[in-house]
Amino acid sequence: MTGTTHGRTGGPLDAFDLGELRARHSSKWREYPQDVLPVWVAEMDTPLAEPIAAALVEAVGRGDTGYAVAGGLPDAFAAFAARRFGWRTDPAAIRLVPDVMAGIVEVLSLVTEPGDRVVVNTPAYPPYFYWIPRIGRELVENPLLLTPGGHRLDLAALERDFAAGAAAFLLCNPHNPTGVVFGEEDLLAVAALAGRYGVRVVTDEIHAPLVFPGARHVPFAGLDAPAAARSITLASASKAWNLAGLKAALAVPGEEARADVARIHPEVSEGAGLLGVIASEVAFTSGEPWLEELLAGLDANRALLGRLLAGRLPEVGYQPPQATYLAWLDLRALGLGDDPAEWFLRRGGTALYPGPRFGAPGRGFARFNFATSGDRVTEAVERMAASLTGGPRAAASH
Amino acid sequence: MTGTTHGRTGGPLDAFDLGELRARHSSKWREYPQDVLPVWVAEMDTPLAEPIAAALVEAVGRGDTGYAVAGGLPDAFAAFAARRFGWRTDPAAIRLVPDVMAGIVEVLSLVTEPGDRVVVNTPAYPPYFYWIPRIGRELVENPLLLTPGGHRLDLAALERDFAAGAAAFLLCNPHNPTGVVFGEEDLLAVAALAGRYGVRVVTDEIHAPLVFPGARHVPFAGLDAPAAARSITLASASKAWNLAGLKAALAVPGEEARADVARIHPEVSEGAGLLGVIASEVAFTSGEPWLEELLAGLDANRALLGRLLAGRLPEVGYQPPQATYLAWLDLRALGLGDDPAEWFLRRGGTALYPGPRFGAPGRGFARFNFATSGDRVTEAVERMAASLTGGPRAAASH
Repeated sequence: MTGTTHGRTGGPLDAFDLGELRARHSSKWREYPQDVLPVWVAEMDTPLAEPIAAALVEAVGRGDTGYAVAGGLPDAFAAFAARRFGWRTDPAAIRLVPDVMAGIVEVLSLVTEPGDRVVVNTPAYPPYFYWIPRIGRELVENPLLLTPGGHRLDLAALERDFAAGAAAFLLCNPHNPTGVVFGEEDLLAVAALAGRYGVRVVTDEIHAPLVFPGARHVPFAGLDAPAAARSITLASASKAWNLAGLKAALAVPGEEARADVARIHPEVSEGAGLLGVIASEVAFTSGEPWLEELLAGLDANRALLGRLLAGRLPEVGYQPPQATYLAWLDLRALGLGDDPAEWFLRRGGTALYPGPRFGAPGRGFARFNFATSGDRVTEAVERMAASLTGGPRAAASH
Repeated sequence: MTGTTHGRTGGPLDAFDLGELRARHSSKWREYPQDVLPVWVAEMDTPLAEPIAAALVEAVGRGDTGYAVAGGLPDAFAAFAARRFGWRTDPAAIRLVPDVMAGIVEVLSLVTEPGDRVVVNTPAYPPYFYWIPRIGRELVENPLLLTPGGHRLDLAALERDFAAGAAAFLLCNPHNPTGVVFGEEDLLAVAALAGRYGVRVVTDEIHAPLVFPGARHVPFAGLDAPAAARSITLASASKAWNLAGLKAALAVPGEEARADVARIHPEVSEGAGLLGVIASEVAFTSGEPWLEELLAGLDANRALLGRLLAGRLPEVGYQPPQATYLAWLDLRALGLGDDPAEWFLRRGGTALYPGPRFGAPGRGFARFNFATSGDRVTEAVERMAASLTGGPRAAASH
């Protein structure tokens, strides 16, 4: 290990060196050549939480790799949601789905019709742009407002889109890629609008466990509003415990959406991964101590990233996220065109997630994943800065 | 361990006792109460092959649980297919899909249009009946002929169905649930008919590694025929190495279907499980010694099942399968109605897979999974027999 020691906590973000990470088979580590530092897709450079790793090793030893069923996972999630968010939900009404995106596809297929409009706040998780048209629904981009204080919902624009005829609103909260956590007041306003215009709300709350001190996650379905009772939430342990490749998520109905979620066919649930179910149950049951340690490290990194950018790339717009390990960087002042990530990949040996894939407001932006060691966060920013000054490219030494 | 010791080989089928299996989280072991002996869904009661287990434990230790990419899996499959079946296929043209069923859905969505007819031999894998209509295609049941020598293709009926206007033929070979391995002559006849009527052939060859001595798997795409070159094969390590819950399969184009398979979107491949990719690559590369040991045990069990049925349930029709660990039992002579599995579940404490879920020809049939110890195969048949004589129900002692 060479270089600086910013942000070293001895926590899960610091456990692996670059050689160990490069032995991974995942898209984060296999998409680009070995000399590129990847800070793009939402995978963390951490070991698994110890109880999760132990459960997976036990399952492997038992050959417990057959078809998945939800088993104890809905109960584990319901207990976690009650404990962490004060949200009471009935585990018997929850259905297993392969991942949050597959769950959104399933739920939108059930509660909307072909040709229906689905409103999405942009910038938005790139797979939405593929899957919503794929099932014959029209994606309506509803841009968040970018204010000096950060991104926020544009309630007037949302009302216009609802009034123009929308069947559903796919709300991502905490929001990817901006890291904004929508407050209760905004959510109640959304619920009122959805109720007024008969819009079904489907919420992607995959990042809900990853909220930093100072913000609070309010589950939409837990609001006291008719549109909340009719909403359906997609939840998963995959982001907070780094289980994206294990394939398990849950569709959680509000009180008045139980019949819709009950129509999710068992063949759909069978598409989930059994090791994902096993790992997620352990995560929700026993994964909070690890999660707190993780959040402490991520909190340090979001501050570190702010200091690094202020010092080395002061033209970059950065609002520390209130949740997630994703930083949505406004790179427009650098004059690198619509896709600055392309520049940093080619000239800086650093792979960010290209902003334009998140919709129109992503032009000139890129997403930076800081779920790695402080040294690697530093290295990535140094590489980005060096690529702009024409200085020597930093070596991938960490 | 009490009872008989039929078929004990010390191989993978005998490794676990009932207590160990009942600790599994899979649908096979969680769907029914603990006193029911499950011989229904296609999960094997084996440990994983040692190199697969080692690779999975290593991945867990490395936190290698992020988003999947195909990595070395297409190369590993192509080498396996060349070695085992003499089938040459270009790994660069192969695409990763979450499982064989998802791959069929994807491929049919690409090569057929809404409203198109898809011909399927029945009895057929139950999920076909859900997913083909789900994507707006019409499933046309084309029953296999049941002859004294076993099931075979009804080429005249197939021609009638093709001539009546079919866009695709979904061929399952080796065939689930009958265990029939279609011979080269039949497959060439299918290719000729498909060519004549412009029908695209999509083949589900998930059971191809599980062919017993005396039969030979002929990959459809390897035939010298235009319809073979235009065909698309779905392949997976999931059945032969018991990885259904890990979610990885491959879409393999014939020479003239490469452009179609290339249209499978990366977002679809991202639905696969990373541990499935890792395990499958090891299976195809290093899994054959274990597979041979498994096949020896399964071969013994298919003979054992024949002896047990002849002795205890001689009215049951049973053609030893040429491949797979599935026995398609003709129970019509027992007078138990359309769904004899219901009888054996309620009266015999044994869960078979209900025949009617495989289509119209499944009435009076049930599928029996013999990928377990010889003792448990024996116990299941004893329970079935006892339920018919009104004798005391055997205890689940193994």
